[in-house]
Amino acid sequence: MYQHQKYCNQCGKEVVFIFTEGKDRFVCEHCNIIHYTNPKIVVGAMSFWENKILLCKRAIEPRKGFWNLPAGYLEDFEKAEDGAIRETMEEAGAVIEIIQPLVVYNIPQANQVYIHFLAKLIDGTITNGVESLETKLFTEEEIPWKEMAFTSSTFTIKKYFEDRKSGNFKTYLASFPEV
Amino acid sequence: MYQHQKYCNQCGKEVVFIFTEGKDRFVCEHCNIIHYTNPKIVVGAMSFWENKILLCKRAIEPRKGFWNLPAGYLEDFEKAEDGAIRETMEEAGAVIEIIQPLVVYNIPQANQVYIHFLAKLIDGTITNGVESLETKLFTEEEIPWKEMAFTSSTFTIKKYFEDRKSGNFKTYLASFPEV
Repeated sequence: MYQHQKYCNQCGKEVVFIFTEGKDRFVCEHCNIIHYTNPKIVVGAMSFWENKILLCKRAIEPRKGFWNLPAGYLEDFEKAEDGAIRETMEEAGAVIEIIQPLVVYNIPQANQVYIHFLAKLIDGTITNGVESLETKLFTEEEIPWKEMAFTSSTFTIKKYFEDRKSGNFKTYLASFPEV
Repeated sequence: MYQHQKYCNQCGKEVVFIFTEGKDRFVCEHCNIIHYTNPKIVVGAMSFWENKILLCKRAIEPRKGFWNLPAGYLEDFEKAEDGAIRETMEEAGAVIEIIQPLVVYNIPQANQVYIHFLAKLIDGTITNGVESLETKLFTEEEIPWKEMAFTSSTFTIKKYFEDRKSGNFKTYLASFPEV
């Protein structure tokens, strides 16, 4: 997740790891540049169709065989919501319409910030993507809570069903571990 | 903003830029690793005190001399809201309490996703940070709209004042350019 840098990616010479601009950073003293590193954004979609929500069973590690909201790393030059749309297509073969941000979820240990969007399946069509063993629509009663891959999805799904009662969807801020 | 990689930061040998996993990526054929690159998260705070909001006049380029919400790159292993708290302390010497996410704002051309939080100054105390020429609390009528540094802040401030009328703050999703 967090890769220690050994060489400058601009000149190929060894970097040093020194305190600068408030913290230890990888610096090339030859190029005189700081190699900044930053958390990654994971984008995902909490998509519904009628009274069901979309989950995928992961075909890849980590947490292979467990259920998750379609999600993945935001790509360079991609809008956050477009990443969620792309991941949902890749993992579930489903076309969605973004409604709003639903959850901002920090996992500082993994150097990740999740943004989960509330979204609507445009026609209920789903298929298995290559990264999914299975893709399925679940009612609230059918959610496999004990077979969820990540706490981020569990948190978001709970908030979705809570807010669905009132129809007033908020945007939540949370972190793992939830303390 | 987007730095072309020339050398592998693990072994120092030259990388190639080839199509893999859906797009062109920097790959080290010696280490057999993909050097993923991703958008950066910029975190900031829309902080209020009584009927005023906090802005800083930038002391550094880009947009030196223009006003902005305190904001900056999220650091490794930092929670999004903690980044907004840190930036507000660095730029405005102010202690804030985070209330909720207010805006998710994409600037895909700059490979950035902004997260602006609604926050409250805990006691109204502000000072100039080293990255600020001036730090000031503004009423809505006093906002220097034509001297704002970035559209992200302009968008967020407008939404703040719109929602303040009802007291019901939503979380907005937008992008630059706003089309």
